[in-house]
Amino acid sequence: MSADQTTPTLDLTADVVAITAQIVDIESVSGNERALADAIEQQLRAAGHLEVIRTGDAVMARTEGGKDRRVVLAGHIDTVPVAGNLPSRIEGDRIYGCGTSDMKSGDALMLKLAATLTDSPYELTYIFYDNEEVEATKNGLGRIAREYRHWLYGDLAILLEPTNGLLEAGCQGTMRAVVTTRGTRAHSARAWLGDNAIHAAAPILQRLADYQPERVDIDGIEYREGLNAVRIEGGIAGNIIPDECTVTVNFRFAPHRSVADAEAFLQEFFTGFEVEITDSAPAAVPALSDPVLATFAGHVGGEVSAKYGWTDVSRFAAFKIPAINYGPGDPNLAHKQEESAQTDLITEGERVLRDYLTTPY
Amino acid sequence: MSADQTTPTLDLTADVVAITAQIVDIESVSGNERALADAIEQQLRAAGHLEVIRTGDAVMARTEGGKDRRVVLAGHIDTVPVAGNLPSRIEGDRIYGCGTSDMKSGDALMLKLAATLTDSPYELTYIFYDNEEVEATKNGLGRIAREYRHWLYGDLAILLEPTNGLLEAGCQGTMRAVVTTRGTRAHSARAWLGDNAIHAAAPILQRLADYQPERVDIDGIEYREGLNAVRIEGGIAGNIIPDECTVTVNFRFAPHRSVADAEAFLQEFFTGFEVEITDSAPAAVPALSDPVLATFAGHVGGEVSAKYGWTDVSRFAAFKIPAINYGPGDPNLAHKQEESAQTDLITEGERVLRDYLTTPY
Repeated sequence: MSADQTTPTLDLTADVVAITAQIVDIESVSGNERALADAIEQQLRAAGHLEVIRTGDAVMARTEGGKDRRVVLAGHIDTVPVAGNLPSRIEGDRIYGCGTSDMKSGDALMLKLAATLTDSPYELTYIFYDNEEVEATKNGLGRIAREYRHWLYGDLAILLEPTNGLLEAGCQGTMRAVVTTRGTRAHSARAWLGDNAIHAAAPILQRLADYQPERVDIDGIEYREGLNAVRIEGGIAGNIIPDECTVTVNFRFAPHRSVADAEAFLQEFFTGFEVEITDSAPAAVPALSDPVLATFAGHVGGEVSAKYGWTDVSRFAAFKIPAINYGPGDPNLAHKQEESAQTDLITEGERVLRDYLTTPY
Repeated sequence: MSADQTTPTLDLTADVVAITAQIVDIESVSGNERALADAIEQQLRAAGHLEVIRTGDAVMARTEGGKDRRVVLAGHIDTVPVAGNLPSRIEGDRIYGCGTSDMKSGDALMLKLAATLTDSPYELTYIFYDNEEVEATKNGLGRIAREYRHWLYGDLAILLEPTNGLLEAGCQGTMRAVVTTRGTRAHSARAWLGDNAIHAAAPILQRLADYQPERVDIDGIEYREGLNAVRIEGGIAGNIIPDECTVTVNFRFAPHRSVADAEAFLQEFFTGFEVEITDSAPAAVPALSDPVLATFAGHVGGEVSAKYGWTDVSRFAAFKIPAINYGPGDPNLAHKQEESAQTDLITEGERVLRDYLTTPY
């Protein structure tokens, strides 16, 4: 255990909104999750009824009572970079701050349930993991899938990614690629001797600006795709014609495409340019026909829609574990400076999950 | 004097090609000129017949004998970033390495003349200065013009910028501007909630790619303009729609435009975008009708052409001091990885200048 006297202490006797505030206020931008992981580990170990292990800045806990069915609850504890939106504040019926929606309100539900739910007819597994908001190779749940695969096992996995308290099935795949233009350096006063690689990127940006995303229907659920530049870099000095420009793009694709299909799409889309795939994660088809998932869906009620955003649902799907997204945050506010979550959805989320997890099957 | 026992010692009894090699091998990328300035200062002080002062990493030396005419020789001692092209090497009739053309071969001529030319009918001023290859606000000669303006005075200023041993008159102006697009951040999985600022830069790059530079005739000398992106930056994280993209452009303009004209041109060229001027330096018209300059031109012989590249000629021009570019380097190789200079032009440059500066007027 890496916790020491500097570990912040969480009070899990508080209500779930207050717990959300506590963990939002422990900054945990991807790569900097240690303090929050320490605090979570300390609480889970203190609970007494859980087997707990720590791997990197991921913390896993589970009951081991020999019951027939196991439900896995999972949430990432990292956030995108802070944008002047910490510490948290509660105003009216919302809690504001970096990570409130994506996804520390979901993590707060998991913590509250982990600390208090000792009488479930299900075996329960809680997975708090690091580095979800960065390239897939760093993803803490990916590391767990490689090194502690048996910890992922369950009859149902619920990811507490933001869904506004609705059920969202499957998930988009994601792929990052770097599209490069090359030119020839020269002094900018004699530009005709060079070849400007930044100017050569104009068609890349124009194709992206003109791109019309597809909408794909799978099992009655509509998935929307997206292709965007997420970074552009070029230039050597203020008086040099640049010889290289790189555009990093992120392709979010519907579950009708495999990773290989998505790569073929990008290679064709950027015909005439160098395209290097740097990162990808498969989409997941919805698992709505699974009976355990159907029971949970019936319990939550309401419609099932597509999950926009890659989520670790696809990691469970890869192991044939039915998985679904269900969380109290607002996905439309994720990664925004004004990120916030509706407090009554957090409270309602605890009620729904506690009710489901204490109802005999 | 900031020189100490670590100051590299130059041997000015060597020939000018060997002196070029010596000073090329003392790396002096802009901002890192101190060691070379120390070495130059040490030699100029040792010469005995010169008044020497040091300001920052600029070194100035002059004779004070009461003769009628004064010629100022000036050269910057900094270079663009090293590109694996140090130390220097002589191969065939060329010397290769960072700064060989721009403009340590010119500096070598100045050093050789400063050390040995004690019998000129002219008073002579030598100015070695720092930070020419970066934004104009840092330019060492600009600092000298503000703080030691009387040191610039002369009947003729010769800048030893690379001209292949030809006379190049006047100079282009230069202006840098940052053109910015703005958008709205969102998670890249729900891109329709955001507005991609990188995609919005497509028309900026397209206008630059389509731009046709003007060619302007002044006093029979043709000046070519140029407008280029020298840097592009945008992006926050791999899964965020970026809300800002900046394109830094460098406009090289002919002497028919003032700085204000150049700014108006850029504002119009980038209509519809935010344009911020960050750096500028005026062009200089050629001073070919000046009799002292004409004498020197007659001495060198050959045609006079336009100087491509902003040079400190414009700083002398601003004080009505006739000034011209004449140096042994190759301007077409400046700032290139394969930078080199023709050794016989270096030797010839010394001969021409020594001849001119020892001929009675």
